[in-house]
Amino acid sequence: MATVVFPVQISAVEDAEALHNAFKGWGTDEKVIVEILGHRNAHQRQLIRKSYEEIFQEDLVKRVESEISGDFEKAVYRWILEPADRDAVLFNVAVRNANKDYNVIVEIATVLSPEELLVVRRAYHNRYKRALEEDVAAHTSGHLRQLLVGLVSSFRYNGSEINAKLAEAEADVLHNAIKEKKGNLEEAIRILSTRSKTQLIATFNRYREIHGASISKKLLDEASDDYLKALHTAVRCINDPTKYYEKLIRNAIKKFGTDEDALTRAIVTRAEKDLKNIKELYYKRNSVPLEQALAKEVSGDYKKFLLTLLGKEE
Amino acid sequence: MATVVFPVQISAVEDAEALHNAFKGWGTDEKVIVEILGHRNAHQRQLIRKSYEEIFQEDLVKRVESEISGDFEKAVYRWILEPADRDAVLFNVAVRNANKDYNVIVEIATVLSPEELLVVRRAYHNRYKRALEEDVAAHTSGHLRQLLVGLVSSFRYNGSEINAKLAEAEADVLHNAIKEKKGNLEEAIRILSTRSKTQLIATFNRYREIHGASISKKLLDEASDDYLKALHTAVRCINDPTKYYEKLIRNAIKKFGTDEDALTRAIVTRAEKDLKNIKELYYKRNSVPLEQALAKEVSGDYKKFLLTLLGKEE
Repeated sequence: MATVVFPVQISAVEDAEALHNAFKGWGTDEKVIVEILGHRNAHQRQLIRKSYEEIFQEDLVKRVESEISGDFEKAVYRWILEPADRDAVLFNVAVRNANKDYNVIVEIATVLSPEELLVVRRAYHNRYKRALEEDVAAHTSGHLRQLLVGLVSSFRYNGSEINAKLAEAEADVLHNAIKEKKGNLEEAIRILSTRSKTQLIATFNRYREIHGASISKKLLDEASDDYLKALHTAVRCINDPTKYYEKLIRNAIKKFGTDEDALTRAIVTRAEKDLKNIKELYYKRNSVPLEQALAKEVSGDYKKFLLTLLGKEE
Repeated sequence: MATVVFPVQISAVEDAEALHNAFKGWGTDEKVIVEILGHRNAHQRQLIRKSYEEIFQEDLVKRVESEISGDFEKAVYRWILEPADRDAVLFNVAVRNANKDYNVIVEIATVLSPEELLVVRRAYHNRYKRALEEDVAAHTSGHLRQLLVGLVSSFRYNGSEINAKLAEAEADVLHNAIKEKKGNLEEAIRILSTRSKTQLIATFNRYREIHGASISKKLLDEASDDYLKALHTAVRCINDPTKYYEKLIRNAIKKFGTDEDALTRAIVTRAEKDLKNIKELYYKRNSVPLEQALAKEVSGDYKKFLLTLLGKEE
């Protein structure tokens, strides 16, 4: 369930004009930006962007970038973009730093549905004039490259069929790959980057039955190399995206200095999808509402904007 | 340019009925099958298949399979299928024999446009309830797997931009990979499976300028392993599909016993695309019209059907 609250009907022209007024003169009325853009769904934001371009002959995204700054700017910028285009931007930012941000690549590639991932790959072409896998491959090497390229290029089968025998056999392959670290690593990469998510979840369940602990736990104990950590992220995102994001947000808040990048990414990308479920899990897990925890860690317009996307009403 | 000749307007119902009559009683009137199906484009064939199903409550494809046999059956069966579905079938047949038929996988994956390949991958899901790359990966290993999975999963950028500096640098990488065989092989696979075709052709051109011979020629001289042969096929298909198919057909005809699988695949898949250009190149290269060369090597209804797809009129 989504958290963002938006009116059923909007006037894109009025919104564009209100935003333009907020930019005018000295200083910017950030409150208007939060009020309008924080309460519009993806389709409405695109209509506003179009109207703004038509009326004022300038790109709303560029104007916003020049009017505000810091984490607030980053969050609003990502929020205005059409979702597939936003994911293309997130991929690109991570790719340019692929050896550090490989977990972001794994996260986006595995959380998106197979069809959504195709749309993002098309958006990546349009924006960067290159293929996503082309950039990922050019910035990585070895097993990490193999896994990341496999994950971003995959077009998994999306059906609900499960092959129980295969799940059993591949639970074994994964176990050996984790235990021996080398040997079957290519097989582990093959399994995680090509099998359907339903099949993989069956394999992970079988793994837990046989080995008495989840594969995610085992990987965490063994993960020393980047590609094993990347495998760990892939398993978590495929297994339970809600749980993955709850922890991402929890760690981002807990971190000394707060990890604003992770926080912004989680809230902006999930606000129109399952942020409500993530919020509920957060409360269950931490006994503090996410809004309250967040309010203590961030401040200013950035805080107001994130809280708005989380569904908080004044 | 296509070769297949078809009427502007057809009656799918009349065609379905004529086919049904051809199947009735003892024996089949193969002439009718050739006459009708050999003169219908992909859209018209789908309409006929639909009408046939509606009128006679049976699948035309299944009925054809039970009525005729051998190479004729295979050719008609592949021809009736919707092109993306046909490519999915061709992929699957090759995948099940991937260590022998990897060249077919390379051929289809590289000749299709990036968007066409996506449509075929979707057709593969529908037909086999698995992902194409999933099956390719499960049937191969090592460098051959890396290359084949890379090729079938790629969604290359399709624009016309060329980065000349990159072409020069990657011509070098490819040269080293071929010369030293190991070392940079993963880089060669990365380049061939992710760069845009326009960029790759620029790289191949640069290669020829620097090394005085085409990369395809160099690969042919050095190709001992399967993955180098597969690289060779990939280079040829990306560089010039018309030239590739002319040679495929030439070799299929020249071969002792004739390679009907290759012949059928080339003619059926190209008849609605560029078979006219392939035919012209064949004539230029062999000084014999393709129809004439073909007529000497194959026979019966299979021959009549292929000649019909080649545009020959009685």
